[in-house]
Amino acid sequence: MSKVLTKIKDMANNIYQKIIKKRQPQLKSPLRSLTNVKYNPKDGFFELLGKEKIRTLTASSVKTFAQTLRMMALSKELIEKDDIATKREAYYVSKNWEEARFKEQPESDAVMDDMEAMMMVNREQLGFIPEEKGGEVAGKLIVVDKDPDTKREIKIDCTKFGSGAYSIPTSVEHLKFKTDAKFILAIETAGMFQRLVKHKYWKKAKCILVSMGGVPTRACRRFIRRLSDDKKLPVYVFTDGDPYGFFNIYRTLKAGSGNAAHINEYFCVPNARFIGITPQDIIDYRLPTHPLKEVDIKRAKDALKNDPFVQHYREWQKAIKQLVQMKVRAEQQALAKWGLNYVIDKYLPQKLKDSKLWLP
Amino acid sequence: MSKVLTKIKDMANNIYQKIIKKRQPQLKSPLRSLTNVKYNPKDGFFELLGKEKIRTLTASSVKTFAQTLRMMALSKELIEKDDIATKREAYYVSKNWEEARFKEQPESDAVMDDMEAMMMVNREQLGFIPEEKGGEVAGKLIVVDKDPDTKREIKIDCTKFGSGAYSIPTSVEHLKFKTDAKFILAIETAGMFQRLVKHKYWKKAKCILVSMGGVPTRACRRFIRRLSDDKKLPVYVFTDGDPYGFFNIYRTLKAGSGNAAHINEYFCVPNARFIGITPQDIIDYRLPTHPLKEVDIKRAKDALKNDPFVQHYREWQKAIKQLVQMKVRAEQQALAKWGLNYVIDKYLPQKLKDSKLWLP
Repeated sequence: MSKVLTKIKDMANNIYQKIIKKRQPQLKSPLRSLTNVKYNPKDGFFELLGKEKIRTLTASSVKTFAQTLRMMALSKELIEKDDIATKREAYYVSKNWEEARFKEQPESDAVMDDMEAMMMVNREQLGFIPEEKGGEVAGKLIVVDKDPDTKREIKIDCTKFGSGAYSIPTSVEHLKFKTDAKFILAIETAGMFQRLVKHKYWKKAKCILVSMGGVPTRACRRFIRRLSDDKKLPVYVFTDGDPYGFFNIYRTLKAGSGNAAHINEYFCVPNARFIGITPQDIIDYRLPTHPLKEVDIKRAKDALKNDPFVQHYREWQKAIKQLVQMKVRAEQQALAKWGLNYVIDKYLPQKLKDSKLWLP
Repeated sequence: MSKVLTKIKDMANNIYQKIIKKRQPQLKSPLRSLTNVKYNPKDGFFELLGKEKIRTLTASSVKTFAQTLRMMALSKELIEKDDIATKREAYYVSKNWEEARFKEQPESDAVMDDMEAMMMVNREQLGFIPEEKGGEVAGKLIVVDKDPDTKREIKIDCTKFGSGAYSIPTSVEHLKFKTDAKFILAIETAGMFQRLVKHKYWKKAKCILVSMGGVPTRACRRFIRRLSDDKKLPVYVFTDGDPYGFFNIYRTLKAGSGNAAHINEYFCVPNARFIGITPQDIIDYRLPTHPLKEVDIKRAKDALKNDPFVQHYREWQKAIKQLVQMKVRAEQQALAKWGLNYVIDKYLPQKLKDSKLWLP
């Protein structure tokens, strides 16, 4: 944490020196938009191209400038006291900043995003935590946390929760891991996760199960990333066979998202592979389907046209085109047509064994 | 579980006997609507008035009748095998029922609801689990679960999760509890929960913290209810000060909901008390507010007019009228105006000490 503290102090000092010398202080941050990113499969995430936004202290920018400095001060305080604040709490704290208080939360959110980009760290490292929880874990993993009071290590054994699970905290920067698992399986729905937990699939397959519960939260993505990096574990992603599962869930987990490119570096999981329902699976497993919705088709076409990740992978282009042509989608639970535990006995073993069935 | 099994077998046998005797078999279930409930504060939940829906086997009802019987058979199989199925999985299983298969999931959901009402048990007891997870727990509680393989007891100590938490499984019927906590604190947002966990509030206050993450899921409600019953613990509910927090969250937790009256008995938490943000708190604590939205005002007026729970409690009527008059709402994080940990150091202790500040 002290690296971030030093950065904040340096930045503040720099501004202070400029003011003392009667020169205009500046705050620089990278431009946050899809026009300022590229996809480099070697690094595996949307990367910034280097365009910058520079905010110079002038009469018209004085308020935002002051607010950014106060937000930096709040972050410094949080780190020093080992405390946390959600975006919403930070907004309410500002209500005591008199002239510099925010009127609406979107204003304070934007300043926090700017600051995150400016410092080139994810905001959890600044002491700011997301509003929402997300992500449950079961299986062959010991999470090493520390007691907030005594600072002593706490070992959390994720094989020992019965039908329950370990709920990922909103900030995971401080966690360490012990495991002899062979891989991480990230699952779209809580229902499917519960089935795999109930039948102790993690024991048979020697793996760690993570329930994403839809689009993975920041904490969930960062948790998988840190665990996968630290223990050199492959990550297999099991979602529905529809554009939402492919892009909103899988692509976001693997490569990040466009509007947060300055932090994808921390949140993407480059070594993720897709073992969810593919259009070919719908045919091969004769799965019950639903017709594609308008929004599915729009999402698929958008991805083909604008998504640097899809543009990079011919396999994904082929899969999407196939799906659009078939005009249907299939949920991961559709496998239940062949028996409730077909997914455990047949589908997952077949998929995991044969990398030709994966999508990149 | 065997009680439910016996019930299923009896029902099936009854139908079989009728058919053998060439008489028309019938399925009876209580009418599920707000017109068939009353609020009895002694019992504490919306109760059925006794109107029934009778489905007689005729040419036009033959398909639904058959589907209900197949659903009963599926439930029997789940219970016997100690397996589970989500609503969605049950729908897909039906794809192999030939003529009796469901076309769309809402059809199978409705049959499952009917069956739940018919049997007068919650569907978790029939082996059907909800799609969504929900609810995290930290603090002075040991959850006693059992290993799905060995059936041996597993003890899960919720004081030992560091910054993480215990994630409530989708079905909680089999759990047992050990605790010396004085009360359960159910919290609306994950952010607030994380703050209380970070500062080990549960240790100071000798309590169990539960994060509901918005409207509590069935599993979360049932968990709190079973824990509170079993250990005779009061439940305090801490939500935002707005109609959504009052009714969609608090009232649902305490008394249940109108369209599921046949199971409120299992899911309501009659000894819950409201210690969240009241309209009077907004004044007393000088909290930052947001204007009431159209939907808030509509929700408030609906509650005054139609909600048997509100009609029963003068205190709630007064509170809602006050809020509508003030035209504002306040979030639980608004307390951060007075410092991030004001909620821990001042608000919660003051509220918990003085029952005159609670709402019923």
